[in-house]
Amino acid sequence: MASNSFGTIFQLTTFGESHGTALGGIIDGCPAGLDIDLDFIQSELQRRKPGQSHITTQRKEEDEVKFLSGIFEGKTTGHSIGFVIENTNQKSHDYSHIKDAYRPSHADFTYQEKYGIRDYRGGGRSSARETACRIVGGAVAKLFLKHYNVSIQAYVSQVGHIKLDKSYTELDLSKTEESIIRCPETSTANQMIEFIESIRKQGDTIGGIVSCVVKGTPVGLGEPVFDKLHADLGKAMLGINAVKGFEYGAGFDSINYKGSELNDAFVSLSGVEGTQIKTKTNNSGGIQGGISNGEDIYFNVAFKPVATIMQDQESVDKDGNATIVKGKGRHDPCVLPRAVPIVESMAALVLADALLRNRASKI
Amino acid sequence: MASNSFGTIFQLTTFGESHGTALGGIIDGCPAGLDIDLDFIQSELQRRKPGQSHITTQRKEEDEVKFLSGIFEGKTTGHSIGFVIENTNQKSHDYSHIKDAYRPSHADFTYQEKYGIRDYRGGGRSSARETACRIVGGAVAKLFLKHYNVSIQAYVSQVGHIKLDKSYTELDLSKTEESIIRCPETSTANQMIEFIESIRKQGDTIGGIVSCVVKGTPVGLGEPVFDKLHADLGKAMLGINAVKGFEYGAGFDSINYKGSELNDAFVSLSGVEGTQIKTKTNNSGGIQGGISNGEDIYFNVAFKPVATIMQDQESVDKDGNATIVKGKGRHDPCVLPRAVPIVESMAALVLADALLRNRASKI
Amino acid sequence: MASNSFGTIFQLTTFGESHGTALGGIIDGCPAGLDIDLDFIQSELQRRKPGQSHITTQRKEEDEVKFLSGIFEGKTTGHSIGFVIENTNQKSHDYSHIKDAYRPSHADFTYQEKYGIRDYRGGGRSSARETACRIVGGAVAKLFLKHYNVSIQAYVSQVGHIKLDKSYTELDLSKTEESIIRCPETSTANQMIEFIESIRKQGDTIGGIVSCVVKGTPVGLGEPVFDKLHADLGKAMLGINAVKGFEYGAGFDSINYKGSELNDAFVSLSGVEGTQIKTKTNNSGGIQGGISNGEDIYFNVAFKPVATIMQDQESVDKDGNATIVKGKGRHDPCVLPRAVPIVESMAALVLADALLRNRASKI
Amino acid sequence: MASNSFGTIFQLTTFGESHGTALGGIIDGCPAGLDIDLDFIQSELQRRKPGQSHITTQRKEEDEVKFLSGIFEGKTTGHSIGFVIENTNQKSHDYSHIKDAYRPSHADFTYQEKYGIRDYRGGGRSSARETACRIVGGAVAKLFLKHYNVSIQAYVSQVGHIKLDKSYTELDLSKTEESIIRCPETSTANQMIEFIESIRKQGDTIGGIVSCVVKGTPVGLGEPVFDKLHADLGKAMLGINAVKGFEYGAGFDSINYKGSELNDAFVSLSGVEGTQIKTKTNNSGGIQGGISNGEDIYFNVAFKPVATIMQDQESVDKDGNATIVKGKGRHDPCVLPRAVPIVESMAALVLADALLRNRASKI
Repeated sequence: MASNSFGTIFQLTTFGESHGTALGGIIDGCPAGLDIDLDFIQSELQRRKPGQSHITTQRKEEDEVKFLSGIFEGKTTGHSIGFVIENTNQKSHDYSHIKDAYRPSHADFTYQEKYGIRDYRGGGRSSARETACRIVGGAVAKLFLKHYNVSIQAYVSQVGHIKLDKSYTELDLSKTEESIIRCPETSTANQMIEFIESIRKQGDTIGGIVSCVVKGTPVGLGEPVFDKLHADLGKAMLGINAVKGFEYGAGFDSINYKGSELNDAFVSLSGVEGTQIKTKTNNSGGIQGGISNGEDIYFNVAFKPVATIMQDQESVDKDGNATIVKGKGRHDPCVLPRAVPIVESMAALVLADALLRNRASKI
Repeated sequence: MASNSFGTIFQLTTFGESHGTALGGIIDGCPAGLDIDLDFIQSELQRRKPGQSHITTQRKEEDEVKFLSGIFEGKTTGHSIGFVIENTNQKSHDYSHIKDAYRPSHADFTYQEKYGIRDYRGGGRSSARETACRIVGGAVAKLFLKHYNVSIQAYVSQVGHIKLDKSYTELDLSKTEESIIRCPETSTANQMIEFIESIRKQGDTIGGIVSCVVKGTPVGLGEPVFDKLHADLGKAMLGINAVKGFEYGAGFDSINYKGSELNDAFVSLSGVEGTQIKTKTNNSGGIQGGISNGEDIYFNVAFKPVATIMQDQESVDKDGNATIVKGKGRHDPCVLPRAVPIVESMAALVLADALLRNRASKI
Repeated sequence: MASNSFGTIFQLTTFGESHGTALGGIIDGCPAGLDIDLDFIQSELQRRKPGQSHITTQRKEEDEVKFLSGIFEGKTTGHSIGFVIENTNQKSHDYSHIKDAYRPSHADFTYQEKYGIRDYRGGGRSSARETACRIVGGAVAKLFLKHYNVSIQAYVSQVGHIKLDKSYTELDLSKTEESIIRCPETSTANQMIEFIESIRKQGDTIGGIVSCVVKGTPVGLGEPVFDKLHADLGKAMLGINAVKGFEYGAGFDSINYKGSELNDAFVSLSGVEGTQIKTKTNNSGGIQGGISNGEDIYFNVAFKPVATIMQDQESVDKDGNATIVKGKGRHDPCVLPRAVPIVESMAALVLADALLRNRASKI
Repeated sequence: MASNSFGTIFQLTTFGESHGTALGGIIDGCPAGLDIDLDFIQSELQRRKPGQSHITTQRKEEDEVKFLSGIFEGKTTGHSIGFVIENTNQKSHDYSHIKDAYRPSHADFTYQEKYGIRDYRGGGRSSARETACRIVGGAVAKLFLKHYNVSIQAYVSQVGHIKLDKSYTELDLSKTEESIIRCPETSTANQMIEFIESIRKQGDTIGGIVSCVVKGTPVGLGEPVFDKLHADLGKAMLGINAVKGFEYGAGFDSINYKGSELNDAFVSLSGVEGTQIKTKTNNSGGIQGGISNGEDIYFNVAFKPVATIMQDQESVDKDGNATIVKGKGRHDPCVLPRAVPIVESMAALVLADALLRNRASKI
């Protein structure tokens, strides 16, 4: 069933496998008249691309996006924006070792059963390479949001047991990109990097948490029942490879407080723009009744360690015979640093769509 | 924007406010030929209805569903199934105390800003009363799933700091309904009840976790990219009132393990039905690459304490003037026991839809 | 599959069979703040209801709509609007004569084959009674369009061979409702009525054409590729029972002209509102490249004679045995007069949706 | 708003302008395991491509499709199928003559007003070049339908006043491709060609009718209310450039008959496959109550003469100043022969989708 699309008004549809000719997508519903900064979009792709540092996979892939339509004289025309990213690193490989074997905790088994056929040369559509297209869609969404002064910033707040024990309000998020792990606090960042290096030496992998903050959201985004803003954000995040959990605002920690402790009191602030209604605290995470209230939106996304490890693993082949899946190839010991722009991109797609949907809320 | 629908092939659309004439909905896309057990549907509503025990709200509401179409001689006809639940408890109240005031952490402020108008007599569409319609849709979905031997069982695993420290595999879930808190272990259940009673005496509220297990899911449900099965489950759960987080399989705890520790090895089991491919462990939570692998699906849903407390709270009115929101009315000190059937219902809607979507996966 | 919804942003979902308890629907996505004129909505239902004149079916049905949600103090709240229309005329009938027989050119055979089950007491979901809900949705859409000065007027332009040989620009459409056949020219109207009476005496039925004009549409409605405004109008009309054809602007007659004859030259008109770009002629029917150009939109809808006739007809039962379908009951010799408000309603739903969709076209 | 997609389960999304780098699309929801015959798909593109005969535009464009994903070892994998068609004929032109002028009956004016920006180098998204992508999607849909023995055949039945006065049942449709006009009867075909040549010499254009027949459709395709099979076919056809009307079965001619004359009596036919229920006549055009009944589906599509003529035309520029639009370039005097495969493609998309949707009709 058609399921490669995300969004309703601002919509991204993607295609492409890790070992095919190219990946790509169509951004449909982006309003006309938006200035497209191609350098920005390419720079977003650089943040996700493999080989960017010694703690990511050493695969080299340029991830260069080529736009094919929907942009004229530097501006969106209101029509569908087609783009492709060629796969330039498709060496002729020997895949016999994984052709019939099911790699543990990968999609090999489920794809084979669901479709009766599987591109055994790699993860096919389950490869994280697919997320490059989300970066392109998300970058265009970010340009649109920027026009409305909405900004999105994600960072790594935990790797294994190493945790950044501060709220985003206590951090200088502008430092996030200074570290290859994308953690804004230098000392914690260095511990994380060191830990990932030790994990890599073991041929193993480790997960963690990406935290994300959205600033400048106008009041009113999100829909009241099934399409609550945080429900759409949650779906967006849970659709990213290796994500196992999502929480927003006070999240799972809400359990530890009483209503009287957690409620966000409303207050009035007078300023140059007149009186504004704000909340004293923000345990709601910027969303009340599924709708943005103008405060910062913040949420956490839990990533498990990626399934591909450099160790031999017991498994079965498609006939059920026992087999060993060898650990080889070039893979990420920890996807967290590369996941940061993906989290931002998916958040941007949700918010751009919510912003446009909200245009129909009043007569 | 149209946003009161959930699902693609098997779809529920709902309407209704807490203080209107009636709530109701339309179940569209339910296949023809399904036996409709009206008693079962009504019994599901009983599990959600207010006033069912001394730890829920003491409001009395019968929540009787009346089907209007789509069922003929006890079977679904393949056409849209309309239903209504009348609001029988609509006393003539004085709402002047909340007409203009914004209750903290409610949807009053965001609704007013988004729509420019608000039904101030109650939460309107943000009232948990809306979930009664989800129970009806979910009950029909459960009947459909039962036909395919898929069963869903949720239970309360945590209230405040009181936690059921066991995996669902160590519990006898058939005991869940024996306790008014819907926790399957008697001693923990009793502690939870006692704790809720103490919270109620304080005029306060408390949150917790509902855990859910789906058994019997065939391999192949869910879509590989944006509509991963757990992404749809996550959206479904995050769309329930007061939910702040979702995790499935090893969830947030995945962070504490290495890939080699968390991967689920495939094994072959021979039985009367021939050789079956299973996994030794189930950290994947029954879903790999977004698609069900035939193992149990399990997940946790975090609920915050509900915002309505029996204490006075500082707030502002719609003009920004300081005001006090009085604590009065009949409300739940803890929504967890009533949330159990809602979690099951939303899961049922997701799975019924996934089952039908999967019919189009192969030629 | 979910298929009882129409529209994307402004969306109507319906339920209900001719012989069930009630029909009804949900209007989702209607912007907040719209004044709801209940009398107007009921008056629209009167235009469709059976028994309104001696040339329609003599069945009596009051078709009274009851709104259940989404309206507060006379205005839409932005939430889903639920409504029901009770079936008050459900006599206890003997349906044995049609229980197993397939009425010619009805949906009996196709429903039985598609669903394996069929409500044999009437047409079930294929009954034109279903269109009452379209009138309710269309009436709300009309109220929304009125706010933007868009008006819709349909009329009967042909019944059998009796044809109104004038363009709508030569007619006084305000006279449409003066005649029971809803043809604005008295002499032609009378001929049509007389003809229908003769058809009824034969126990037969006759079809015709409903023409429709939309005035005041702003420039820009409709989408450029698959969702062209006239494509959505066409789908809307072809979804009405008994419709066999749709044409807009010069329509099928376009074939008889050369491009140089049919092209609509642009001209500039100066007025109090400044210079306006208009077209000299309007063969485009107010739509160019799928998008409204501000001129009048006009189209024709062809209705076949309804299949239910008061004559015996040869047929088969569900086992393929030859049988006779008796002509009995109370049916319309010609649906055209009652189809007029249905055509308008479906057009209103399309335009309201297009108007809201267009809010996302520019940054 | 996202509007470049067609279909629900089997879905085509397209992008691309006449003067951009490339066109392309994504076919999503095609079931896995379908053999992809690339030569067939390319041969379908040849039927649409410009320059194929002296009665079409003399522009040369190779229209070569390149698939980028979703196909592995010659079969569909169940994942989204990306494809591109490069624009190889993009000469450096002088567009100053149309940069600001609005060509009569084109989308120039409506695009400029709707989007505030317009790719003035050609028709942009309104160019018929966009239909090349529909051919690709339609060809894949045809391969899918062929698997179920459903075949689609369109032909030109009228050009201007020259009309093929026979039903499709009296024609040998296998001869359609023998003539450059794609009319299956040689003498009429030759008259049509001669007439088009005379029109071209006048620098003018002419329209006509494409008729289409679908054979082998199983009973049960289409949905009963808004998504009637003929409503979806109608929308599909009306979304093709230059289409002004659609009718199916007896169509507009239904008006000239009484119900007793038009009803299709059911009969039982005994054959090797057992008893089959058929209809004596087929005025219903293979669809009853919106659902296919197993008989041939047939319909007509009316095309106006294309707006681009080789004559000077009066118009205005975007500021409302009078101007002359010069007739120049290489254009089709009659689009009918090239429209034949487009009509077939859109019909194939509708039927493939309907076939998959129908898999959810029964439990």
